[in-house]
Amino acid sequence: MNHDHYPSKLLETATSEFASLPGIGRKTALRLVLHLLKQDLADVERFSSSLLQLKKEIRHCSYCHNISDTETCSICLDSKRDNSLVCVVENIRDVMSVENTRQYPGLYHVLGGIISPMDGTGPGDLNILSLEEKVAGGGIREVILALSTTMEGDTTNFYIYRKLNKYPVKISTIARGVSIGDELEYADEVTLGRSIANRTLFESSFNNGKAY
Amino acid sequence: MNHDHYPSKLLETATSEFASLPGIGRKTALRLVLHLLKQDLADVERFSSSLLQLKKEIRHCSYCHNISDTETCSICLDSKRDNSLVCVVENIRDVMSVENTRQYPGLYHVLGGIISPMDGTGPGDLNILSLEEKVAGGGIREVILALSTTMEGDTTNFYIYRKLNKYPVKISTIARGVSIGDELEYADEVTLGRSIANRTLFESSFNNGKAY
Repeated sequence: MNHDHYPSKLLETATSEFASLPGIGRKTALRLVLHLLKQDLADVERFSSSLLQLKKEIRHCSYCHNISDTETCSICLDSKRDNSLVCVVENIRDVMSVENTRQYPGLYHVLGGIISPMDGTGPGDLNILSLEEKVAGGGIREVILALSTTMEGDTTNFYIYRKLNKYPVKISTIARGVSIGDELEYADEVTLGRSIANRTLFESSFNNGKAY
Repeated sequence: MNHDHYPSKLLETATSEFASLPGIGRKTALRLVLHLLKQDLADVERFSSSLLQLKKEIRHCSYCHNISDTETCSICLDSKRDNSLVCVVENIRDVMSVENTRQYPGLYHVLGGIISPMDGTGPGDLNILSLEEKVAGGGIREVILALSTTMEGDTTNFYIYRKLNKYPVKISTIARGVSIGDELEYADEVTLGRSIANRTLFESSFNNGKAY
């Protein structure tokens, strides 16, 4: 597939490594490598070692499975957070997305994926057992399921619901509806249909302060 | 500028390194780093070392200034190539672009840039003296200037022309005209104007075999 004429095997190898990253084609890879080649050796060493150090030293929080520099992550260690609220997400990036809203006061539980028979991911591949143990241990008042609004997300939500509904815990899912700032005419029919069926009382849009 | 909540300092550092690359924003950088984090340690080590090895071991061909794994690059060493033809290009990527046409039989001379008063690049910063010495040494019948068709490219072409025209060597520049496959109505006026002024004899479009 690669018919480019590389003047150097070293250049070709480094370019191939970059081109193996998702969304990076060979042209972009070459541009990135040539950019790095123009930097000082110390900069390239810093670039390389940041990756290696991350790979070698990163841990997963023993409580929520989020990645962490320490045995327990900074979110789980934060005494100002509400540890009776658990938000279940698919991966690390989703934790960051919810954190970026600056509105969620509770803790997380990272599943490490989503149930997807197509990709061969079953419940046993995910951190679902530890979620059940966490809930069974008590002290959790609400589990918020914040998974993708897809078939796989719905399947996973339902699986977790069936595992947890024998415990005295409230189980909720994130609201699905028309995105804020969207015009109705551009919303797809499924979303619009659900957002009407699952309408909320108008007054409840005022009490954001009591959301949890 | 960065208000994201990174669960790990190591992750943030690696993401910042990737985000320092041209055209890579923080979201893309995070996606690339998390992708690498999912790979085996051996893969990450290979990725890192390919870059470091490139930076530490790469050389520049002593004859054409192209990057090379060896003292003289594989193009200059190729005895099947016509060493009386020299194609002057701005950088390594341009060598690769011309090589990818699979039509050019001669050697190269990489300037390492282009005269640009705006960027503070003068003739002394470029490999122009070694080009003149190469031509002065004899054995070169044609120098093909293949620089960008910009103001800076034109300035550099003219500077090189004035340095070389005292030697018995043919000096040419790449043809400028309407791109092959383009429709006339979409060509800009400057290009179209020049392509009419610099029209070529119709028969000459047949003798591709005698181009050099």
